[in-house]
Amino acid sequence: MTHDPSVSVQRDAEGRLRHLITLEGLTAAELTGLLNLAQFYLRDSGDLPARDQSLWGRTVANLFFEPSTRTRVSFELAALRLGADVVNLDMQSSSRVKGETVLDTIYTLQAMHADILVMRDAEPGLPAYVARFVAPHVSILNAGEATVSHPTQGLLDALTVRQVKGDFAPLRVLIAGDISHSRVARSAWQAFTTLGVAELRIAAPDDLMPGPREFADATRFNDIDRAIDGVDVVMALRIQRERMSGAHIPDDASYHRAFGITAERMKKARPGAIVMHPGPMNRDVEIASDVADGPQSVIQRQVANGVAIRMAVLATIARNVQSRRHFQ
Amino acid sequence: MTHDPSVSVQRDAEGRLRHLITLEGLTAAELTGLLNLAQFYLRDSGDLPARDQSLWGRTVANLFFEPSTRTRVSFELAALRLGADVVNLDMQSSSRVKGETVLDTIYTLQAMHADILVMRDAEPGLPAYVARFVAPHVSILNAGEATVSHPTQGLLDALTVRQVKGDFAPLRVLIAGDISHSRVARSAWQAFTTLGVAELRIAAPDDLMPGPREFADATRFNDIDRAIDGVDVVMALRIQRERMSGAHIPDDASYHRAFGITAERMKKARPGAIVMHPGPMNRDVEIASDVADGPQSVIQRQVANGVAIRMAVLATIARNVQSRRHFQ
Amino acid sequence: MTHDPSVSVQRDAEGRLRHLITLEGLTAAELTGLLNLAQFYLRDSGDLPARDQSLWGRTVANLFFEPSTRTRVSFELAALRLGADVVNLDMQSSSRVKGETVLDTIYTLQAMHADILVMRDAEPGLPAYVARFVAPHVSILNAGEATVSHPTQGLLDALTVRQVKGDFAPLRVLIAGDISHSRVARSAWQAFTTLGVAELRIAAPDDLMPGPREFADATRFNDIDRAIDGVDVVMALRIQRERMSGAHIPDDASYHRAFGITAERMKKARPGAIVMHPGPMNRDVEIASDVADGPQSVIQRQVANGVAIRMAVLATIARNVQSRRHFQ
Repeated sequence: MTHDPSVSVQRDAEGRLRHLITLEGLTAAELTGLLNLAQFYLRDSGDLPARDQSLWGRTVANLFFEPSTRTRVSFELAALRLGADVVNLDMQSSSRVKGETVLDTIYTLQAMHADILVMRDAEPGLPAYVARFVAPHVSILNAGEATVSHPTQGLLDALTVRQVKGDFAPLRVLIAGDISHSRVARSAWQAFTTLGVAELRIAAPDDLMPGPREFADATRFNDIDRAIDGVDVVMALRIQRERMSGAHIPDDASYHRAFGITAERMKKARPGAIVMHPGPMNRDVEIASDVADGPQSVIQRQVANGVAIRMAVLATIARNVQSRRHFQ
Repeated sequence: MTHDPSVSVQRDAEGRLRHLITLEGLTAAELTGLLNLAQFYLRDSGDLPARDQSLWGRTVANLFFEPSTRTRVSFELAALRLGADVVNLDMQSSSRVKGETVLDTIYTLQAMHADILVMRDAEPGLPAYVARFVAPHVSILNAGEATVSHPTQGLLDALTVRQVKGDFAPLRVLIAGDISHSRVARSAWQAFTTLGVAELRIAAPDDLMPGPREFADATRFNDIDRAIDGVDVVMALRIQRERMSGAHIPDDASYHRAFGITAERMKKARPGAIVMHPGPMNRDVEIASDVADGPQSVIQRQVANGVAIRMAVLATIARNVQSRRHFQ
Repeated sequence: MTHDPSVSVQRDAEGRLRHLITLEGLTAAELTGLLNLAQFYLRDSGDLPARDQSLWGRTVANLFFEPSTRTRVSFELAALRLGADVVNLDMQSSSRVKGETVLDTIYTLQAMHADILVMRDAEPGLPAYVARFVAPHVSILNAGEATVSHPTQGLLDALTVRQVKGDFAPLRVLIAGDISHSRVARSAWQAFTTLGVAELRIAAPDDLMPGPREFADATRFNDIDRAIDGVDVVMALRIQRERMSGAHIPDDASYHRAFGITAERMKKARPGAIVMHPGPMNRDVEIASDVADGPQSVIQRQVANGVAIRMAVLATIARNVQSRRHFQ
């Protein structure tokens, strides 16, 4: 049983997803459905991207209270390629507004018939809070929430692994770095756990390890060299300098020595193991540059999958809301 | 008779509106025509927004010398839903440029076939100034000009009142707050006066009351409790803190006590009276939060009407300019 | 023979243009082809702009590491009118990133199926550097590179001259101002030299004159009054105040006296000579305001030609890349 309000608020009375705020509570069948639709939207590099009119007449508003050009562009292209109108609201340029006023912004967009609101925020709780108040035809998509949740990232990570490895059941997956502050790690853990990997390992310096009530069933390591032994998937997390010093790591080079994913370390993983990174990378800090560009890296593929996953989520949410509209 | 240059410059030789800079000089028939077209463009919340191709092939440029995300998005969505290409120019990031250079910017956009220029500026005079120089096929839409004019706001306010109250003739309308610095109040006064309300009242602290040559025929109050007595419509204006202190009001709470629209005060209005606010609100300053969210509030409706009014204005201006092009 | 890496990197194995980084190395036939296509895309002021679907399904990303609203909007409108999806990335708001990280940004956009990347940068070398690494279907368009290159500006200047003067062969062209720091001058010199003007003159204060190995065959003047004698085309360059002081010119008025294009000076040019400026102008500094607005000025025409040239370049690059895709 969960007490995370995001889990229940993101479903309508019939249990359909109308928001996507967290991957917690999604069934394996639901995750697989989203991965399948994303796979349908994928095209080879060099081919034109997939297009359809799933969002014809819909308006997608990108509300980024925390800046992220790459994630904003990924959602923007996904929405445009599904035929939506897209508006960008750069919210960080104005001073941080309090919850009540955010709600007024949301109500304003809702009144303008913006029906899918893509939100990113550095503080926790806003997507679920807002989702409680919007009209039945309005959907909230979480594009990154504090250290808590980044569901489309978790989905694109799962899709990337599935493309290369096929089946999740036999896989050992390692997430390495600042687990404690990582929404990427939390959403990946939810996806991989639900999809049933054999083992999920997390490796972090002691000060960056999450508390014991999180990441249930994950195997914990503070030594990356032991953690990487025999894994099929290595996911490196972006480290922020202020977090390093909080963990008593003096500089980039020390972090790289202690926790960087290097070619030497990759030899301890299973042959054919893949390396992932959510981007943007600090090259030669959390990941060696030659590993990032090497044959085991699937980092570019993650980016391509990101647009496809966002198309799949947008199209699914829009269809669920439309069904509700027509049959109630 | 008026000497406001905006009044004459906004019409072509045949008297048709080719710019919209002020509501002054518009006839009741013209205002009603715009309200009717906006009503045609309205859809229920939850339905897809109206779309047509009135602006097919046209380019709308949003030039905001004063920032306003909500008004920019409202115009952007209106233009996109009429099939226009839209470009946003964030002019406040560059240092305030002098009139001549603004004209070079305008000429540049005109040469790029941007034919509808939506302008917002914190200083008065720019829209009418620019309108004198643009080519015959180029239109200027005023999206907020200093304390002077905000014509689409005046129109959406009139539309909102008409939807709820039907006929303007019997209505008593109160505008309350910083009348002196309010373009919203000036445009609303022009609309309601032309559309023939029974009485227009303005209520403001003495220091925020406009001079006697403005708001002709309006009944003036410095006591909100007397002003609100028996009115059908209460429009609260956004107060800015620096203006409060200019009016010797020390803080938000004092302003709220003296001039805030509260549930208690609303009891003095006529039964069924509505409450309006142009947004964004300072909750519990110029308007009590429970009033803003209560059954008499039509604030969300104003926002929805805003997009519809902007569609109506864009389509009307485009048609007028096109007629001129084809038949001259 | 050239050693500029931009020259070779911008062609594919069959010699077709797949990037546009510099005008150096383009043949007269290639330049003429681009001018002809741009002419095809031109419409009279007041007519709707040309539209087609040459970029249908394509994604154009504007990456401006150096801000320029007018150039960004010109590329944005060109791409929209050819049916592309367009995303804007404001890169100058983030701190200047090093080459490697720019490459990660490029790879990210490429993985998102952004296939035409329009780049502007205040430092030299980035477009050619990036072009070496992108996938075969991705094109780099240089929208202004340090003091080095601004190819679409050179093309629009050539188109403007051709429209008014017809044949390049008999023409004497003067470029006047801060030649040393001007990418506009360099690209114009390349275009006019290849298209075969009779004489190209450059006039600059001594400290703003480029070194002797640049602008081969150009006639050099440090006296604008002698330089302008008998020319058919006068191109004034924008001067920056910090460059003035570097050239021991104390203020705007001094620069205007020494190098400004005035009506008096224009009398020394050939009758019917035209005046050009790349914009934005410092009125009454490098160009007298009455000359800029006078009958010999073609400055607005340059802007209109700018969108048409960018449409021509976008459509040509897209066709070349598509041919390669289909027939290899």
